[in-house]
Amino acid sequence: MFITLEGPEGSGKTTQARELAEFLRQQGYAVLTTREPGGTSIGDQVRAILTDLQNAAMHPRTEILLFLAARAQLVEEVIRPALAQGTLVLCDRYADSTLAYQGYGHGVSLEILRTLLAFATGGLIPDLTFLLDIDPEVGLQRRRSAGQWNRLDAYDLDFHRRVRQGYLELARQEPQRWVVVDASQPLAVVQSTLRHVVLERLRHPTASTSLTERKDSAA
Amino acid sequence: MFITLEGPEGSGKTTQARELAEFLRQQGYAVLTTREPGGTSIGDQVRAILTDLQNAAMHPRTEILLFLAARAQLVEEVIRPALAQGTLVLCDRYADSTLAYQGYGHGVSLEILRTLLAFATGGLIPDLTFLLDIDPEVGLQRRRSAGQWNRLDAYDLDFHRRVRQGYLELARQEPQRWVVVDASQPLAVVQSTLRHVVLERLRHPTASTSLTERKDSAA
Repeated sequence: MFITLEGPEGSGKTTQARELAEFLRQQGYAVLTTREPGGTSIGDQVRAILTDLQNAAMHPRTEILLFLAARAQLVEEVIRPALAQGTLVLCDRYADSTLAYQGYGHGVSLEILRTLLAFATGGLIPDLTFLLDIDPEVGLQRRRSAGQWNRLDAYDLDFHRRVRQGYLELARQEPQRWVVVDASQPLAVVQSTLRHVVLERLRHPTASTSLTERKDSAA
Repeated sequence: MFITLEGPEGSGKTTQARELAEFLRQQGYAVLTTREPGGTSIGDQVRAILTDLQNAAMHPRTEILLFLAARAQLVEEVIRPALAQGTLVLCDRYADSTLAYQGYGHGVSLEILRTLLAFATGGLIPDLTFLLDIDPEVGLQRRRSAGQWNRLDAYDLDFHRRVRQGYLELARQEPQRWVVVDASQPLAVVQSTLRHVVLERLRHPTASTSLTERKDSAA
């Protein structure tokens, strides 16, 4: 099972992913967590180029292609082999981040981005994606008070609103894959929701809603 | 004017590009030559990843995306600014190499590659492309006797035949951009053809064939 966590900065993704992974391991599942970019030796080398402050001349399209190169390597070297062994893979951000930030946020063509992403991932789509949804003003406020303010957060509020609306639109387009969680709730409440949904899916892997309903209708 | 040289290894591209650039400079033109990958600081960092023997685990799709990232940066940081200043840009390999080698040679979808290339280059297409066409057996024989044998040359002969046929097909599809030159001729004969065609185009920038003919038909 391949699970991804999406959402803006300040939505608590990283904390939630770590706690969810710990919980699932306690339940006896083999769990692999990854964080983009990086996660492989080649990906780490690409990440070094992306984060080097000397590379201020980097063009936005170069940046996207480097992110995709790191992701392509992560998929083939780490994610696919883990899934093939029956390991549950939990990613903090994946392809949908590119659609939300570069597409909805920065206005790069969604059609082109989808083609690029399908190529980079070899068509690997998550089984389950959580959107930790939060009002951008609340999320950014959280980041500020946690002292985690970075270059990306400094984009204007309109940008972050477009990203949020983009995420919500993606979730609407594929309701069987996405579960939208209100991330303004206390962390423990959000975590409890994630655990509940994941355990439900692990018990009924092919069902997006309760399997009981399907049995009823088939009977 | 943006000119590219394409063709298999052993077709003499690099030598021809160097001599053509020297000739055009002697004629008083400002000429910039580039060679892929690399050509920018960021591109050189990407090139280091691509060529590092430690990175043997690199997936083919990662490789393509890294080549495209380096090319995106080269286009925006070097080629476009040079063209904007009226400099003649001469590239030893460009986007058509990706179509010939990855597409026709390795069987990656041409449609997907064209989308990736359009994205990476921002749609920048050469004004003139020379195909230095040569029978793969002759080209590889030249490489061997020149002691330039490398990993890429070791692909089987069928691969190199597909690349050659791919180049010829690309040239057929856009006859106004491509000029196919028989690269089995002596180097000086090939160079003389390149000079003649480039000077003709510089005198009549919008004409793909002789302008005289157009004037006649318009008269």
